[in-house]
Amino acid sequence: MKYFALARYVGTAFSGFQVQPGRRTVQGELCRAAAAALGAPVQITGCSRTDAGVHADAFAMTVDCPGATVPPDRLPMAIARFLPDDISLFYAKECDDSFHPRYHALGKEYRYRLLNTPVRDPFLWHRVWHLPQPIGAGGLARMRQGAAALLGQHDFSSFMAAGSDVADHVRTVTQLTVDTVGDEWRFTVRADGFLYNMVRIIVGTLVDMALGRMTPEDMPGILARCDRDAAGMTAPADGLYLHRVFYAAPFAPDGLPEAGWR
Amino acid sequence: MKYFALARYVGTAFSGFQVQPGRRTVQGELCRAAAAALGAPVQITGCSRTDAGVHADAFAMTVDCPGATVPPDRLPMAIARFLPDDISLFYAKECDDSFHPRYHALGKEYRYRLLNTPVRDPFLWHRVWHLPQPIGAGGLARMRQGAAALLGQHDFSSFMAAGSDVADHVRTVTQLTVDTVGDEWRFTVRADGFLYNMVRIIVGTLVDMALGRMTPEDMPGILARCDRDAAGMTAPADGLYLHRVFYAAPFAPDGLPEAGWR
Repeated sequence: MKYFALARYVGTAFSGFQVQPGRRTVQGELCRAAAAALGAPVQITGCSRTDAGVHADAFAMTVDCPGATVPPDRLPMAIARFLPDDISLFYAKECDDSFHPRYHALGKEYRYRLLNTPVRDPFLWHRVWHLPQPIGAGGLARMRQGAAALLGQHDFSSFMAAGSDVADHVRTVTQLTVDTVGDEWRFTVRADGFLYNMVRIIVGTLVDMALGRMTPEDMPGILARCDRDAAGMTAPADGLYLHRVFYAAPFAPDGLPEAGWR
Repeated sequence: MKYFALARYVGTAFSGFQVQPGRRTVQGELCRAAAAALGAPVQITGCSRTDAGVHADAFAMTVDCPGATVPPDRLPMAIARFLPDDISLFYAKECDDSFHPRYHALGKEYRYRLLNTPVRDPFLWHRVWHLPQPIGAGGLARMRQGAAALLGQHDFSSFMAAGSDVADHVRTVTQLTVDTVGDEWRFTVRADGFLYNMVRIIVGTLVDMALGRMTPEDMPGILARCDRDAAGMTAPADGLYLHRVFYAAPFAPDGLPEAGWR
């Protein structure tokens, strides 16, 4: 059986998604737990490689286990007791052998949470970027103006950290919004694909504009330079959530309620 | 200077509020941090003694430090760098020497969060009581009926755990509501005072009624017996939040925004 599954995890105590020798990773924990639940070795393929500290609301993956007989709707309960407290697998269905969660993804949505208060909120420790300098309404206007310049198809090399060997740096951003809820600033970014650290560099650059270190008018020039040094800071991993992965039918998961902000 | 202050903490890693030798406590951390920030020994008096694992949205206390010169509105920032990540002090004002945060409290509001889903949510680990058995609409109706029987002035001995030497067990519950938001069940309890573990036993008993282990019609008899064994289970500490403490003028803190659900 090959399962399509969705998992949720708090990224704080993981060295990212992908298995690395000697490190605690999401993929490593999921492999171990799925093998225990299914009684046979499994292969897990993820929709992306989230970095250390990055969270996921609904990380898409396949769990490939040829001999498995556990019905897909029983998999979440079957695996639950083998998973650590910072991961849960909450949805599964059978999928075709040809399905690949990365190659078949049409796009993804990331969310980023920033808390803008003088003192930290202990309940949001490692769940947001705490920024004590006040952003204010002027800052919001500048962030929205800067964000608008990133919409559409561009070469996003200026928003890519070193350490990636991806050759094509052109991506299409279909949504980039900033909203405020109480003291929180919430960024939503949808694109057909993302370069390494792209969301964190976008958010960091927008915050640089909010705080007056750059101006929104700089944004077209930053894009045009195709150089990481042109953009602003990298926002910390703590505030970043892989929120959703989009697939076309028949691979789209059915009837899932949309998750709220974490 | 004697400060009235409000603190917020994640109770998971504390052996409760009150100082105990050799244990990590909220009061112990606050005392250490306040003394460092104010440059002199301080005495901290709390509005209550929350148990191990119990959280606080706005724990009221006094910070007494005769030689202190830090203006109250600077105290939250001054103490922030000496506090651990699971506590913040977010409000302070000067108060009269005669003020006592426990004796002058008119009442308190506790909140309790229960997550009713087949599998755990890692983001709510230690922040809610995860109950996998479905409660449903019938369970909600039974909980609300049971809750209604507890409103008003009663001897709450049946809802008091052993280990307390309080003589008077009569309390007045002015609000006891159960609401659902998504998969979460949210209990709000306001009273003029609370006995040891009172909220946790109330919630546990209501859940016993939701699950059919007791009936709402039992509630008057449970109260009348004045015996802990008459009531239901004790809900775990993880879901409990001291939300607010009420004071009359001139002790009431001014202009504080009402905190949302955590």
